[in-house]
Amino acid sequence: MTTPYWTRPEPPYYVAVFTITPSGTDPDGYAETNERMVELAEAQPGYLGRESATLPDGSDLVVIYYADDESIRTWKRNPEHVVAQRLGRQKWLGRYRVEIARVERAYEFAASSDADAARVGQE
Amino acid sequence: MTTPYWTRPEPPYYVAVFTITPSGTDPDGYAETNERMVELAEAQPGYLGRESATLPDGSDLVVIYYADDESIRTWKRNPEHVVAQRLGRQKWLGRYRVEIARVERAYEFAASSDADAARVGQE
Repeated sequence: MTTPYWTRPEPPYYVAVFTITPSGTDPDGYAETNERMVELAEAQPGYLGRESATLPDGSDLVVIYYADDESIRTWKRNPEHVVAQRLGRQKWLGRYRVEIARVERAYEFAASSDADAARVGQE
Repeated sequence: MTTPYWTRPEPPYYVAVFTITPSGTDPDGYAETNERMVELAEAQPGYLGRESATLPDGSDLVVIYYADDESIRTWKRNPEHVVAQRLGRQKWLGRYRVEIARVERAYEFAASSDADAARVGQE
């Protein structure tokens, strides 16, 4: 499911920021597990969207949006996800940091609109 | 200044998430302005780190970390930054969304450490 970033709702909502450095060893099953985890993340109620990119050092930067913190906690506890987290630490990942953050305000702009810049949420 | 993601402090702190789609037109000065804005972002007191990557559709995903919200507000109001924001909307950017979020908790892991996974911040 593709959810363009400009369709996200007004704050507040939540974002989980993942910075992930693969170990480069034992990649067997890593790509398949990642794909399955994306499916799980999107299937979790409260899912609002996701962006993923590779950093210059080869690490992955992933941001996943949810309507509320409880959705993130439920998704983290998903049994299949728990197994993948353990395998990641055992086999695939050299280092990671996950940050759970509450989006308090947002600013957006679209060149095609009349507005110079639209601010959503509160100042 | 390079600040590795695993050196970020314990929450709470703040992250600004930028999703930016260049217009593809009138790129004159865009790269130079971007470089200067990175310098300004890093010089702003409270700066904790930054990651930047290109998304599959050519948009940029940038996350910039600050110790507190006031640092972000001050940085946004920097006169040179205000000019760059206006030029971006006038000339360089097709669309963007900026989200200001309070990091409430973080989880991290390093394969070289003894800990299976270290949790920083509160549950």
